[in-house]
Amino acid sequence: MLERTIAAIGPLDFSAMAAARDLQGRLTKPAGSLGALEDLSVRLAGLAGSCPPPLPEPAAVAIFAGDHGVHAQGVTPWPQEVTAQMIANFLAGGAVVNAFARQAGASVTVVDVGVATPLPPVPDAATASAPATAGAPRLVAANVRAGTRDLAVTAALTRDEARTAVETGIRIAHDLIDGGAGILLTGDMGIGNTTPAAALVAAFTGTDPAETTGRGTGVDDPTYARKVAVVRDALRRHQPDPADPLGVLAAVGGLEHAALAGLILGAAARRVPVLLDGVIAVSAALAAAAFAPDATGTMVAGHRSAEPGATVALRHLGLEPLVDLGLRLGEGTGALLALPVVTGAVRVLHEVATFDSAGVAEK
Amino acid sequence: MLERTIAAIGPLDFSAMAAARDLQGRLTKPAGSLGALEDLSVRLAGLAGSCPPPLPEPAAVAIFAGDHGVHAQGVTPWPQEVTAQMIANFLAGGAVVNAFARQAGASVTVVDVGVATPLPPVPDAATASAPATAGAPRLVAANVRAGTRDLAVTAALTRDEARTAVETGIRIAHDLIDGGAGILLTGDMGIGNTTPAAALVAAFTGTDPAETTGRGTGVDDPTYARKVAVVRDALRRHQPDPADPLGVLAAVGGLEHAALAGLILGAAARRVPVLLDGVIAVSAALAAAAFAPDATGTMVAGHRSAEPGATVALRHLGLEPLVDLGLRLGEGTGALLALPVVTGAVRVLHEVATFDSAGVAEK
Repeated sequence: MLERTIAAIGPLDFSAMAAARDLQGRLTKPAGSLGALEDLSVRLAGLAGSCPPPLPEPAAVAIFAGDHGVHAQGVTPWPQEVTAQMIANFLAGGAVVNAFARQAGASVTVVDVGVATPLPPVPDAATASAPATAGAPRLVAANVRAGTRDLAVTAALTRDEARTAVETGIRIAHDLIDGGAGILLTGDMGIGNTTPAAALVAAFTGTDPAETTGRGTGVDDPTYARKVAVVRDALRRHQPDPADPLGVLAAVGGLEHAALAGLILGAAARRVPVLLDGVIAVSAALAAAAFAPDATGTMVAGHRSAEPGATVALRHLGLEPLVDLGLRLGEGTGALLALPVVTGAVRVLHEVATFDSAGVAEK
Repeated sequence: MLERTIAAIGPLDFSAMAAARDLQGRLTKPAGSLGALEDLSVRLAGLAGSCPPPLPEPAAVAIFAGDHGVHAQGVTPWPQEVTAQMIANFLAGGAVVNAFARQAGASVTVVDVGVATPLPPVPDAATASAPATAGAPRLVAANVRAGTRDLAVTAALTRDEARTAVETGIRIAHDLIDGGAGILLTGDMGIGNTTPAAALVAAFTGTDPAETTGRGTGVDDPTYARKVAVVRDALRRHQPDPADPLGVLAAVGGLEHAALAGLILGAAARRVPVLLDGVIAVSAALAAAAFAPDATGTMVAGHRSAEPGATVALRHLGLEPLVDLGLRLGEGTGALLALPVVTGAVRVLHEVATFDSAGVAEK
């Protein structure tokens, strides 16, 4: 399934991009005055292969949740149980991602791809087979294993486990797109998951771990030093090869990172845009781009996370984020804040009058 | 009316701000992880004097349109008629501001505060007294004079004309708020209006015109040099006193700039937030702050315009913009892109569960 998906991913359609660029020049506004939105609309035309591209509606957030053996190294002050507790919060609609999703009209699908502790009781509706909506989040049970192994000691995953997680992400992409989604938003939940994200960014970009490791949800100085050392030692121990993304994900990744890489690949194969959230998402995006370089065409960077690894990854991918407000929450919150910008960029191509049609003089 | 409005503007409510800061710390997310949105929610609580503050809904865009005698100096390649033609485009729903307003569910009110050329025929519905909606923009006829005088030759306005325009903006603020608006968004249309904006920013901040003058909707090098010289000469000729905002607006302002200053003052008196668009808005915001320093409490910077004067003004006002995407269109488009961020920031205080209520462990 992974190989079939990779084979289905192709480049952007240059003739649709040229048509979008031409149309932008005829709309009733000074040429270029919509800045980054004009470039974005051109890329999305290239992805869709049509001008205008379809409005990216409805939006679907997929929150992949997993736990991390590296939690044992004391890289975060939060107890591991919080991953499962926050899943219950997502399904009850009480988290920030729910508030933002309701505002944006986006559905919320929570995927347990590797939670370590038992899930608290969840509402019956959340486990039904009905599609997720903004008001009625849904849980998909797809646990590959109860958290990764400790990457400070051994490989986090076997190659087979990593592949299963990637293919889970691909399957979720197809399910959401088959359900009508016009854009997918990446979400994540996993106490400790900025540590594997920092390792993935370092491995795929060849950057020193001190530059890719951040303070996550807020660690103190000794914890931060420990975190950098853990990432550095893990890379030295595993020597992951950036040309072998499955190997990198298995050595130092997380199940949610692997699944997010799959989500991106699945969307790329269907030529549907993926709006990336923070550092977990962009570390997974590096894996997706290593599997299939053309997958970058499907990626829209939602925001610049406060985590330094996010900026390293975005630079490597050649992506400029749409929102930069110092967020470091994850869950998909940064992607949801950027969604109206993406929709607006496309809407301009659909709805704005041309100089000719509006009878407005040109300069 | 102006003096009564200024007298009604008070400081932020510190106890509501403290309550909002405390609530942010108890919500199910790491402290501070929503970055700039947390600070924004605290400020809006202080403005409303309650925690949580009301959701900023519905939103109303007020587009003030005017022409400029300085057009005669060749500071822009666009014919002056485009101001009136774009009003027709706004009322027909064909401009970018209309597309963004429909997406955001914001009403659009166009105020002719000083257009120089005859308006093209506008739809009957637009001149009816029904309130504006996103789908049905409305025109308010409040023309103070048919464009300003040429600030390169004489004062752009008399003090009385400037006052009338400011009071028009105050009246529009009250009308929109009386009609239910929970947030006002600034919009503007006026060929040539970045020249008076650059002069206002230079006058209020004491910055050299070379740093406050930009290329507007895209002028070439000779036009740009002429534009800087016009601003510099006008400031030398009129010597506007930044402590006398009415005098500054009269000497080098525009009718839409003066009306926007009034809109901000009116909203501040009602403790309703104003989401600022680009350089025209922030130059007007400097005037509003000169009239009433506490008016800054009502201001939310929507975006960082590509015009350099916008950044100078925002720094002077102590405002950080929410969106920075290289836009330089005006109309209210940058403010509309930022609106979901403002709404989201407040929504968090209304809808997100606390650690206690959700049964999530703390670190």
